[in-house]
Amino acid sequence: MNKIIIASLVVFSAMGANAAQADEGMWTFDNFPSATVKTKYGVTVDEAWLDRVRSAAVRLSSGCSASIVTPNGLVLTNHHCVRDCAQNLSTPQVDYVKDGFAAATGADERLCPGMQAEILSGISDVTDTVTKASAGKTGQDFVKARDAAIAEIEKTGCTGREANYRCQVITLYQGGQYKLYTYRKYSDVRLVFAPELQTAFFGGDPDNFNFPRYDLDFSFVRLYENGKPVATPQHLTWSAKAPKEGEPVFVAGNPGSTQRLLTADQLESLRDFILPETLLQFSELRGRLIRFSEESAEHARIADDTLFGIENSFKALHGEEKTLSDPPFIEAKRHADADLRAKIAADPKLSQAIGDPWAETAKIQADRKALNLPYGFMEARAGLRSDLFFYARALVRAAVERTKANGDRLPEYTDSRLALLEKRVLDAEPVYPELEQVVLEFWLSKLRENLTADAAGTKTFLGKESPEALAAKLAASKLGDPALRKQLWDGGLAAIKASDDPLIRFVLATDETSRGIRKEYEQRVTGPSDRAAEQIAKARFAIYGTSAYPDATFSLRLSYGRVAGWTDNGTTVRPFTYFSGLWDRATGHFPFDLAPKWQAAQGKVNKDTVFDLTTDNDIIGGNSGSPLVDAKGQVVGAIFDGNIESLGGAFAFDDSVNRAVAVSTAAITEGLEKVYGQKELVRELTGK
Amino acid sequence: MNKIIIASLVVFSAMGANAAQADEGMWTFDNFPSATVKTKYGVTVDEAWLDRVRSAAVRLSSGCSASIVTPNGLVLTNHHCVRDCAQNLSTPQVDYVKDGFAAATGADERLCPGMQAEILSGISDVTDTVTKASAGKTGQDFVKARDAAIAEIEKTGCTGREANYRCQVITLYQGGQYKLYTYRKYSDVRLVFAPELQTAFFGGDPDNFNFPRYDLDFSFVRLYENGKPVATPQHLTWSAKAPKEGEPVFVAGNPGSTQRLLTADQLESLRDFILPETLLQFSELRGRLIRFSEESAEHARIADDTLFGIENSFKALHGEEKTLSDPPFIEAKRHADADLRAKIAADPKLSQAIGDPWAETAKIQADRKALNLPYGFMEARAGLRSDLFFYARALVRAAVERTKANGDRLPEYTDSRLALLEKRVLDAEPVYPELEQVVLEFWLSKLRENLTADAAGTKTFLGKESPEALAAKLAASKLGDPALRKQLWDGGLAAIKASDDPLIRFVLATDETSRGIRKEYEQRVTGPSDRAAEQIAKARFAIYGTSAYPDATFSLRLSYGRVAGWTDNGTTVRPFTYFSGLWDRATGHFPFDLAPKWQAAQGKVNKDTVFDLTTDNDIIGGNSGSPLVDAKGQVVGAIFDGNIESLGGAFAFDDSVNRAVAVSTAAITEGLEKVYGQKELVRELTGK
Repeated sequence: MNKIIIASLVVFSAMGANAAQADEGMWTFDNFPSATVKTKYGVTVDEAWLDRVRSAAVRLSSGCSASIVTPNGLVLTNHHCVRDCAQNLSTPQVDYVKDGFAAATGADERLCPGMQAEILSGISDVTDTVTKASAGKTGQDFVKARDAAIAEIEKTGCTGREANYRCQVITLYQGGQYKLYTYRKYSDVRLVFAPELQTAFFGGDPDNFNFPRYDLDFSFVRLYENGKPVATPQHLTWSAKAPKEGEPVFVAGNPGSTQRLLTADQLESLRDFILPETLLQFSELRGRLIRFSEESAEHARIADDTLFGIENSFKALHGEEKTLSDPPFIEAKRHADADLRAKIAADPKLSQAIGDPWAETAKIQADRKALNLPYGFMEARAGLRSDLFFYARALVRAAVERTKANGDRLPEYTDSRLALLEKRVLDAEPVYPELEQVVLEFWLSKLRENLTADAAGTKTFLGKESPEALAAKLAASKLGDPALRKQLWDGGLAAIKASDDPLIRFVLATDETSRGIRKEYEQRVTGPSDRAAEQIAKARFAIYGTSAYPDATFSLRLSYGRVAGWTDNGTTVRPFTYFSGLWDRATGHFPFDLAPKWQAAQGKVNKDTVFDLTTDNDIIGGNSGSPLVDAKGQVVGAIFDGNIESLGGAFAFDDSVNRAVAVSTAAITEGLEKVYGQKELVRELTGK
Repeated sequence: MNKIIIASLVVFSAMGANAAQADEGMWTFDNFPSATVKTKYGVTVDEAWLDRVRSAAVRLSSGCSASIVTPNGLVLTNHHCVRDCAQNLSTPQVDYVKDGFAAATGADERLCPGMQAEILSGISDVTDTVTKASAGKTGQDFVKARDAAIAEIEKTGCTGREANYRCQVITLYQGGQYKLYTYRKYSDVRLVFAPELQTAFFGGDPDNFNFPRYDLDFSFVRLYENGKPVATPQHLTWSAKAPKEGEPVFVAGNPGSTQRLLTADQLESLRDFILPETLLQFSELRGRLIRFSEESAEHARIADDTLFGIENSFKALHGEEKTLSDPPFIEAKRHADADLRAKIAADPKLSQAIGDPWAETAKIQADRKALNLPYGFMEARAGLRSDLFFYARALVRAAVERTKANGDRLPEYTDSRLALLEKRVLDAEPVYPELEQVVLEFWLSKLRENLTADAAGTKTFLGKESPEALAAKLAASKLGDPALRKQLWDGGLAAIKASDDPLIRFVLATDETSRGIRKEYEQRVTGPSDRAAEQIAKARFAIYGTSAYPDATFSLRLSYGRVAGWTDNGTTVRPFTYFSGLWDRATGHFPFDLAPKWQAAQGKVNKDTVFDLTTDNDIIGGNSGSPLVDAKGQVVGAIFDGNIESLGGAFAFDDSVNRAVAVSTAAITEGLEKVYGQKELVRELTGK
């Protein structure tokens, strides 16, 4: 683990000052270190370059990134970003996940339920407005005042153009800045092409987060409006040539979440109870779902995306836990905290203005520990991955919240957020009662286990029922029917109150308890934590200026780097794999078995084609599907993973070992042409 | 968590000096602090008292404790200590776990497969012989020399009386003492009575390690020899009267394992990777087994004991993890270590003799981390809970090891250990191929996941197979047939090598790798750790004398205390529950549903009967079934659990909150008489 430790020492000090030596940073487009890049790589990243890339960079509401790659709204992303969509379009008879999907004509392109594509069109600073609203407030008052200000900014920011735009206030530097991001949104996104799962995810979970890798993890969707493909003159140019080792490359995408600015005490909470408890839950649910999937081919099909999501998250969080569990790691962070605190203490005026937010943060951790599981089970992660519960809660809460003034609502139900929520609730997609039973039963049984059988909360949720019997009742909900959902959404609170659907009744009966624990958590944890974080951010700006980048928040960022392998315990890992390696690695046994088309393709494709490659760009989950862009702004790949060392990147970036993994456009082009016979698609991409 | 922290400070300092203020300690019978007990409770625990209790205290090879309670070899233990036996005696038609077991006559009492009962008959000190043998040796040489010496002592200790005695060298004080314990053994143990699971384990996993509690967790087995019940004039007298609050009580049993003498660095390893990885494995296997159990009543029946074992261990280890994850806990331990080190440093001669075993131990932890998973998956926990794998490995290794001199063998195959192993291998018990598939597949898939697909070890175990396909091949082994096992056991290495059983072939093909990782682990971890532990023990003896008790090692111990409730976050928990509470707590839904006999019993039993009770005796897993003994030496209950706070007792005892949980003999008597109509059994117990 030495490699991470050394890195952490470098990074923790660099984060505040200047990360120029490492290819580090998830930079916002309005604060990109172009000068550093010019010096280090000789590449000119000017406003025009940035605008071009920004205009083609897509955020998908499924939690992924993507890019426009033709003038006809064609969007490149990962296979695993449309796995859910492909499953939703499948039936017991046709499995687009297993067998892949290829629209023969435009008319065959299929709507991805619940998916929205968003392109950033403007950034403005609203820090003053937000911080003034919450100034001097504490606890839940702080949270409410801040959230009300945000709701208002988002609403007024998009007034009159809500149909095509989404306004979102993005929190940066853990509350050091608030920026209004305006997105052009597209809510009709259709699946165009996806390879077979075996090809996209060759090596499966065992190879996930590893390299060398042989995954054709790409897919295409297309933006539609008014039933027609959207014209997208601003798109990235498709390059079917792989970049060279050492070549500078950029990643434009939406890294989901990093915790590089947290205090050592907050990291200890992650290490000591938040990550361990989450991982234990994932593990058991994973076990239940694996066995469920083994019961029949149909069970395997319907559980596919849920199980993949859990295994992927499990592996990522497990990597994070391992990083934090190495004792010197947090020690180094504590040292960096102390360093900053000492600098502040040396300046009486600053010291007076900042106070001691580290000490406040330290104190909060006991409440966080006490409330972590009750808050998680009854509110933050209630229902876990149950689609039915998601519908029921959204319907009940939307009905209640819409009766309130915008600024008084729970933030996920403010005017600026309702449109996407409505789409997610109303779009038709299959619901699987057997799978719902597994997930709901698991949730309720862990709720009882973790809160204890005698807790008031357990009694509210379970009454005298067993988790198994109650889950069976709830899984019988009819909310899988989109017509019923529409009726309840449109009918508002009266319709909700009149509903006899078991899950609507259940949410109605438990919602007060859920809101209660949320209120308590905001009062004792969120409020004081966020308030302290604002103070720490101010301290950082005062001492280090704004030369640092903010933590990831699933908003558009640009990272720079180069094509590079690394050294793993003395072994050199080369940055490229080639098609030839695929047949070498195949064993004929899942998940190392080849799809029939690739079994047959061995003589057809150019085996020297670069398949996957690694770069030292700073990325994290949420970057999946991000375009890998060369100096000219051409797309040369799609990021789909990081190596196992990159998982510690949640807390610190070490450019000696952290690597992003991309599938090359060269491999995609060769595969589309030689294996899948997608001549039209290749022509659209390459003009040939 | 304050309550544990304060305790830990007290305990860590007390452990070395004198634990007299707390009711702390798992004392050996040859070093019981009678004077302290006399002073504190006014009870005289003399040699006669100790001999009487020791002669009636039983260790069960299933990992439990028990006691002889009548002159006819009748043994009281817990229901959960015979759950495995009851399941082994069941069939798809008759389920003795669910429905209970009651032998109508002596002839109906049924052999518990693999179970041996052992009664301690003598203790002698062999420390010098063992430590001289390994003096000056390091790494694996140290382990081998020590183990060879132990093998020789155990063999000569029982020469000529092997049929009825078992000699075992018990390691005390982490290697500070080695004592030869001689046991009278009984290998024909028969099930006499067990209540329904619903009654014994009312509240199930949710109530496990909790109190108030309403579990009739008892059973009776009987010792046989030559086909007849063993005459046991030395037995505990049955008292059907519950003890009073504050009354002094004793627990004579076999606590399995505590880690109170470990260094802070060793505790950090437990916290940072050993416990987390173990818990994650338990969680996922638990999930797979829960879903497996839901597939049919028969699956639920055959997985019952395995699932219970996993859930019970999970909850216990989870409690341990929580204790260690509270940062001040290990900090306090480090402080206590430093205190002892300072005392040694102050004495140049002692310092010279002891060296710095703490620094050595600290250094070992990196190797321990690197080897933990490979060693676990390929050797220490290979096959996990697969009965078939257990048979295959035992058969293969016993055949190989028996060709070697006694001192050259793996310790589990030395002459003194072979008899019980042979019994476990040859006794007939059902094997369930579907369950084997689940366990073996899980083991192999986690082996690949944790070692990575490309590791040499993974290739040895899996070849090009998938875990799923390989497990199916291995689960088809015929080793479930006791006749085949006998043939292979008796046939020795020639028979093993000639066998075409898939699991025998598999173990033959992988055993070199397993032995290799074991050798490496002994060289880099076990050897240096145990050697350092011996030095630390010497240091403790030098500074604190022998007034402390050793860590638990599943050998006979006596703890003292009193009937006592505790205060849980300001709430007083009373030490007793009564029959009346059972009907109050019953919801009608599993696991809070009553067995039919108890539904009908509401008017029949005395509702004021003390059901379960708590005491502040110092116990831990392995103490299950231990007799709770009053000052007169009468049995007044059977320990079956600890409260949730007691789980931290693995590392430190806090008598303000650590509580043992027992089922009262009063409840057992009333239940046998009024609910089960067991007049004969009651007569045997009470003479009435």
